[in-house]
Amino acid sequence: MLMSALPTLAALENSHEFHARHIGPDAADEAGMLSVIGLASRRALIDAVVPGSIKRAVGMDLPAALTEAQALAELKSVASKNKVLKSYIGQGYYDTLTPGVILRNILENPAWYTAYTPYQAEISQGRMEALVNFQTMVTDLTGMAIANASMLDEATAAAEAMTLAARVGRSKSQVFFVADDVLPQTLEVVRTRAEPLGFSVQVGPATEAGKSECFAALLQYPGVNGDVRDLQPAADALHAQGALLIAAADLLALTLIKAPAEMGADIAIGTTQRFGMPLCNGGPHAAYMACKDEYKRNLPGRLVGVSVDVHGKPAYRLALQTREQHIRREKATSNICTAQVLPAVVASMYAVYHGPQGLQRIALRVASFAAILAQGLKAQGFAVLNATAFDTLHVQTGAKTAEIHAAALKAGLNLRHAGKDSVGISLDETTTRAHLQTLLGLFGATAAGFEAFEKGVATLIPAELQRTSAYLSHPVFNRYHSETEMLRYLRALADKDLALDRSMIPLGSCTMKLNATSEMIPITWPEFAGIHPFAPHDQLQGYALLNEQLTGWLCQATGYAGISLQPNAGSQGEYAGLLAIKAWHESRGDAQRKICLIPESAHGTNPASAQMVGMQVVVTKCDKEGNIDLVDLRAKCEQHAANLAAIMITYPSTYGVFDTHVKEICELVKSFGGRVYVDGANMNALVGVAAPGEFGGDVSHLNLHKTFCIPHGGGGPGVGPVCVVADLVPYLPTHRAAGYVSETAIGAVSAAPLGNAAVLPISWMYMRMMGADGLTAATETAILSANYVAARLADAYDIHFSGNIAGVKGGGVAHECILDIRPLKDATGIGAEDVAKRLIDYGFHAPTLSFPVAGTLMVEPTESESKHELDRFCEAMLAIRAEIAQVAAGSWTATDNPLVNAPHTAESLLSADWTHGYSREVAAYPLASLRRQKYWVPVGRVDNVYGDRNLSCSCPPMSDYA
Amino acid sequence: MLMSALPTLAALENSHEFHARHIGPDAADEAGMLSVIGLASRRALIDAVVPGSIKRAVGMDLPAALTEAQALAELKSVASKNKVLKSYIGQGYYDTLTPGVILRNILENPAWYTAYTPYQAEISQGRMEALVNFQTMVTDLTGMAIANASMLDEATAAAEAMTLAARVGRSKSQVFFVADDVLPQTLEVVRTRAEPLGFSVQVGPATEAGKSECFAALLQYPGVNGDVRDLQPAADALHAQGALLIAAADLLALTLIKAPAEMGADIAIGTTQRFGMPLCNGGPHAAYMACKDEYKRNLPGRLVGVSVDVHGKPAYRLALQTREQHIRREKATSNICTAQVLPAVVASMYAVYHGPQGLQRIALRVASFAAILAQGLKAQGFAVLNATAFDTLHVQTGAKTAEIHAAALKAGLNLRHAGKDSVGISLDETTTRAHLQTLLGLFGATAAGFEAFEKGVATLIPAELQRTSAYLSHPVFNRYHSETEMLRYLRALADKDLALDRSMIPLGSCTMKLNATSEMIPITWPEFAGIHPFAPHDQLQGYALLNEQLTGWLCQATGYAGISLQPNAGSQGEYAGLLAIKAWHESRGDAQRKICLIPESAHGTNPASAQMVGMQVVVTKCDKEGNIDLVDLRAKCEQHAANLAAIMITYPSTYGVFDTHVKEICELVKSFGGRVYVDGANMNALVGVAAPGEFGGDVSHLNLHKTFCIPHGGGGPGVGPVCVVADLVPYLPTHRAAGYVSETAIGAVSAAPLGNAAVLPISWMYMRMMGADGLTAATETAILSANYVAARLADAYDIHFSGNIAGVKGGGVAHECILDIRPLKDATGIGAEDVAKRLIDYGFHAPTLSFPVAGTLMVEPTESESKHELDRFCEAMLAIRAEIAQVAAGSWTATDNPLVNAPHTAESLLSADWTHGYSREVAAYPLASLRRQKYWVPVGRVDNVYGDRNLSCSCPPMSDYA
Repeated sequence: MLMSALPTLAALENSHEFHARHIGPDAADEAGMLSVIGLASRRALIDAVVPGSIKRAVGMDLPAALTEAQALAELKSVASKNKVLKSYIGQGYYDTLTPGVILRNILENPAWYTAYTPYQAEISQGRMEALVNFQTMVTDLTGMAIANASMLDEATAAAEAMTLAARVGRSKSQVFFVADDVLPQTLEVVRTRAEPLGFSVQVGPATEAGKSECFAALLQYPGVNGDVRDLQPAADALHAQGALLIAAADLLALTLIKAPAEMGADIAIGTTQRFGMPLCNGGPHAAYMACKDEYKRNLPGRLVGVSVDVHGKPAYRLALQTREQHIRREKATSNICTAQVLPAVVASMYAVYHGPQGLQRIALRVASFAAILAQGLKAQGFAVLNATAFDTLHVQTGAKTAEIHAAALKAGLNLRHAGKDSVGISLDETTTRAHLQTLLGLFGATAAGFEAFEKGVATLIPAELQRTSAYLSHPVFNRYHSETEMLRYLRALADKDLALDRSMIPLGSCTMKLNATSEMIPITWPEFAGIHPFAPHDQLQGYALLNEQLTGWLCQATGYAGISLQPNAGSQGEYAGLLAIKAWHESRGDAQRKICLIPESAHGTNPASAQMVGMQVVVTKCDKEGNIDLVDLRAKCEQHAANLAAIMITYPSTYGVFDTHVKEICELVKSFGGRVYVDGANMNALVGVAAPGEFGGDVSHLNLHKTFCIPHGGGGPGVGPVCVVADLVPYLPTHRAAGYVSETAIGAVSAAPLGNAAVLPISWMYMRMMGADGLTAATETAILSANYVAARLADAYDIHFSGNIAGVKGGGVAHECILDIRPLKDATGIGAEDVAKRLIDYGFHAPTLSFPVAGTLMVEPTESESKHELDRFCEAMLAIRAEIAQVAAGSWTATDNPLVNAPHTAESLLSADWTHGYSREVAAYPLASLRRQKYWVPVGRVDNVYGDRNLSCSCPPMSDYA
Repeated sequence: MLMSALPTLAALENSHEFHARHIGPDAADEAGMLSVIGLASRRALIDAVVPGSIKRAVGMDLPAALTEAQALAELKSVASKNKVLKSYIGQGYYDTLTPGVILRNILENPAWYTAYTPYQAEISQGRMEALVNFQTMVTDLTGMAIANASMLDEATAAAEAMTLAARVGRSKSQVFFVADDVLPQTLEVVRTRAEPLGFSVQVGPATEAGKSECFAALLQYPGVNGDVRDLQPAADALHAQGALLIAAADLLALTLIKAPAEMGADIAIGTTQRFGMPLCNGGPHAAYMACKDEYKRNLPGRLVGVSVDVHGKPAYRLALQTREQHIRREKATSNICTAQVLPAVVASMYAVYHGPQGLQRIALRVASFAAILAQGLKAQGFAVLNATAFDTLHVQTGAKTAEIHAAALKAGLNLRHAGKDSVGISLDETTTRAHLQTLLGLFGATAAGFEAFEKGVATLIPAELQRTSAYLSHPVFNRYHSETEMLRYLRALADKDLALDRSMIPLGSCTMKLNATSEMIPITWPEFAGIHPFAPHDQLQGYALLNEQLTGWLCQATGYAGISLQPNAGSQGEYAGLLAIKAWHESRGDAQRKICLIPESAHGTNPASAQMVGMQVVVTKCDKEGNIDLVDLRAKCEQHAANLAAIMITYPSTYGVFDTHVKEICELVKSFGGRVYVDGANMNALVGVAAPGEFGGDVSHLNLHKTFCIPHGGGGPGVGPVCVVADLVPYLPTHRAAGYVSETAIGAVSAAPLGNAAVLPISWMYMRMMGADGLTAATETAILSANYVAARLADAYDIHFSGNIAGVKGGGVAHECILDIRPLKDATGIGAEDVAKRLIDYGFHAPTLSFPVAGTLMVEPTESESKHELDRFCEAMLAIRAEIAQVAAGSWTATDNPLVNAPHTAESLLSADWTHGYSREVAAYPLASLRRQKYWVPVGRVDNVYGDRNLSCSCPPMSDYA
């Protein structure tokens, strides 16, 4: 057993330790996989499938891999450069107490954070129940009829509300009114979004909203300076002219103040951050959007609805999917795709755990403290400029302003720079008597008389705006108030779902790889989680260094010259990238260049993003191998020569193909003055092997939640960095509201300067532990695994769009492969959806269904799945193929067989009247291994049509379960 | 909705926040429960069931409750008084890297840490598989035939090995030889244990072991100073005289050095701490014991074995239960009960994750670094006293000793005080090149030549002791090496089991209450987890303060004058308490007082502990209500008047009864010169209501893992503080090996001065967040809940030993109630075990089965269960009662009904040939609510007899599953 020769010390130190933790197959597995494919080495495979023309000239210049412990230690030293001060800045971000049971059992639990977006309804009932709770929480508190789950941040939610209002409103105006006490970052993002759409943003006092000739007005409730104003007068005046009122409302305040809907608001938006999500330097936090019933089919983003399953039992699923951008494509006006599901789950569970009484108690404490503080300030001779308030005071400090800010910093706290002569103070759930004492001390008070105030004090909420309506009366918000009950509720929900902690999620284009614990640990470090995004820059030096290092490494990985991490989802990165192209054309006097070429195989966010920057989408054709049709492309280029702005391509294509002509395509478009946008969704096939910035891309966005290990969180948070070549670097987004200055940059695209800042350490850890060798090995193994799956399944299924490479079983694919079910459907009636649902009975999440090609399944195994798991998946797919053969052979009818009836719940299997033409055991245990370990699906196949016809997006009454 | 009158600020501040998180029923629930019982208030209930004579005169003087956030902040300030230095002390404790996937998914996962001891085999298959892995790991590495899972620490394992050797050996000697390089704390505990048993401990050089006329010898391998010696000569010499060789062996070293069994050792013991469990100031860590096959039926502690279920499939269960102390009672020579299951699971999974190659790599790195360090030290002119070594060097430092220790402290590290003229340096998994550099710097080196050493260096392991045999070749140690695979393995195991995160565990006497996240969070803080137990006292000031505060609060709760937290399980607290009584009698010249009276209802650890301190057990009778028979007691007192040492009682009794004569009993025994030991197992019925130290107890032990919220961890860690009245305080345990001095104290009973130190913050947090009011409310609610269950079930089941209180439905019980199944068994053949197993089909862990009375079930709901959950349990019990009625009525036969066939696996239910006289649905879904949420048991009823007849305690071959 003892190693015969003593290995070198370096080998014993094993700095590559993490490779074997991240990459599933070991050397022996790899040899076995290659032999099935028919090649001798991983190198030979890469040479066979990756076009030589695009291969990197030199490797990535990255620091050498560290072990997990070493990387954590190094990141800790980066984190420690941040200074965590107590924040009274407010402005949309408040400190909060994350209940331990939620922290540990959601935020730190892979069953929640590794889950995918709930497109497969049957295996997503747990997280969809949590999201329905979220929607109910929002509709209850805002008074609105319907809410989605969720938006990326309050600022983009405001911008989306603007476009929603433009879509549904009656006004012909192109003016969007924004009150001057709306959060500054919201105003900045709204400006960014409005300009390309031709909207004019008019800023004025909130009280003037009704006087503006606009199509909609955005009011902050309470305002950034604390004022709590009646929205009714503005609503009435706006409605009179056919305009809409959008309220940006604070959910905690809404437990005490009148709901926006009760004052005529048409749309409500806001953040749910203070419901249990730490400050996180600005993200990830879930924002919300709610609206009147009549606008529900225009509501952007994801909406969870209640439907029934095939047995007639209540079942959740994503509702109204047909209105989503990825279906609407070039007619889209929103590109939101990945949302903020995990933070939305946290916020909803915070409401579930505290219940209405608990939330009200917290809010009343905050409001009472604010009133006490106001009294104390007045006693010190300071004027409080807002007569009404929930949690925020605007204090006139005159000549003492700088001195007070300096004293605050010395005392370890940040106040808001409200103006030259005033400071803002926002209290929150964490504020205590001792904190008030410290605050008053800054203003010269030596002791505050709590006892005197305690009995007499009222809040500063005006009587007529105090809330009288009930909220959160559903049982779900009134039962789980003990930790034991809450813990079991969270476990029960998690147990309904399939996530990466139980089995492979072979989703094409989604790259469901390992989200390692060492990567996740730093995100709850206080040095990262406790930072307010608008804290002074000198307190953010750790984040600055993280940003510098991570963007530097990503530049190495992509071949680009500059990167912004601000976009907080892939869709936002796309948007920012196209804005940069637009700004570049405009800087050259080419404002007319607005044509954006998009191949027909593209993901739906591409045309949606193009629309949003005011470009006109022209679709180009693909050949039957999934490659861009060069003839058609040239024709389109020539046709639009004068107006060509860009082409958007995905590489490898969404068909999982390394198009050998990609360089030609890029050169062709450039020759007509267009820029090349390479969608980075499939970067997992490229890192270390080829770089889009080298082979012809001008701009790309990445999905750090795909290639760079940020978990999907059930549908977010994501991070969508935008990467550009040198001449476009000046046009990357900035964030003026946070004090970053640039003359050329496009405006902010996210509420916070660093977007979903707090999850960036995940990608940092991944790259730091893998190094250049590890990242390249990951890419090559991802390609190997996809080819292995293709090879094992090639005799049973048609591998769509394979490279037909001689000697390569399966034909050669990139990092994913498409299984064409259409021939089987034609022959037997069994379609891709049946296969997808039958896979649930085998314990698997389905591959991507009917994208990019209807009737197919797209499989992306990633490098993290072991050969054992790949084999388990292949055996399931082969067994399913054999089942289809039985239908073909007539052993089972086309209408009664284990495929069309899948998935099978335990309850249906145990029914006394089992009348199917196959046995219970065939249904439940088609493979012997399932007898040892079996996932029991909680509902049968869900009826989407019923749900959309009977749309219900809030918690169903308990009687539905009787 | 808005509260009509503004509550007081104090109410809004809600310092009692945690009460409602910990205590399940709210005010409305409580009213509903009381109305079922037939009483008007909780106070009335307590007055009815708790004898007025024992009630506390005054309440507990405890600091007022804090919120969760406040308590965490206060504990952080306590923790920050500890100084975490890098440790090179060794001496049985080494720094280690806990793999993130294990940290997060075991140590921080309630599915693992809230589980109970696996007495109910069918719902414990996951944790038992982990424990079989542990046993396999130990037998593989030590080469022994069989290992248990697990021991409390290495020192008590050594003491248990001594008594095992005495039991099984042929020698008549009473001498136990201990090598002088055995760990000092081991020697101290062995001395403590040996004395009352009449063994004489002889200490000498390891090389002299064979020359001693002893019944067994204990050798350390490697020795505390690092020497790696061949055990064979000692084994041969010992065996020649009929004596046994016990090896205390380091598991990491065993990956490189010859296994003890290969050199003739008969028993091997040791710690598994360095397999992933942090230093923790000494505990909790799992120790191991392994032995030759011929001693297996004498092996103390718990042993998991492989058997089959009723369907013939492999299934785990606790093996050879009949040999355990709780059955053997007054013949016992070991009292070990709670072990260290959670740390054992961590250690086993560390081996699973690293596999044999990974462990060997770690060990070789450590050994190589040790050799490099030795070369460097020699180059600096220092002699290394041990010629052979694995990880530890003993360095002659002469006059420079003090200076070097001072320099080490200054550099932030601890060396071992090996002697006046020497220091010890032990390396570990975390040691790096940089650390060696720092170490050599202490000895005057300016740079170490790694490059020069790297190729040439060998370890200091002598060639003839290098290991050549294989280990950990079972697939389980060779498959789960990627994090994804490991994560899924852990999830799959956890999913097989029922723990508190899924449903109530109504175990009588085990107090399965909430283990709150806020209580658990601090245990992995580096300030607590990173401390070596033999670090200088000035580095342990945080622990000292924690100890001072927690013992002070526990004194308030119990009415005692002094408490030691050293005992690391209830059994050890009992043992220490009886030792204190013994020492007190001896101090008064009453060494002959050795009679210990124990009622027949006592828990099996009581007589076992008495035996271990050399007392003679005399059993006293109980009446049919479970109360002590006063006539018999008086007779026994009189009979043994001159020799009476103590009485051991449990209060409320193990029958769940508040004996109204308890004060009389205490006074009676005292009048005969005996002391009163009150077993604290049922303290959950007393805290805040009555105090054993007030109503007559002289000594108690507590179970912090019952009453004070430390989770059961699947069977440990526990903490068993020993509490005494004033005149016994001088006889509490001390720890001389750790530098604590006392003239009167009994010796150490645990390896570490503060026992399972790192879990003490859990109880600290609980008491700090509850305060006196909250703790009292918890006790009263626990009693209320038990009475509610009794009231709801009283018409269906006989409530055994109830108080027959008029007007109280159910008759009035303490905090648990006993359901007598014997009459039903007589009538129908359905026994307590059938009810227990049928409860699994209803999703519940069974109550305590056949203890304290055969044929009964003892239910302890605790205060943490909501009324909803209590109702769910009662409804299950009533439904089962109705099922029994169907058997009685002849609807089902006595041999084929859902009770005798329980639990039902999904596989058995789906079998095509269902031949039972009841439907599948009746079997699976006897209540409609189970259709919404169902626990699927992984195996059918386990065959204990088969398993004991075919004893197998290591991983079964994969073919068994085929």
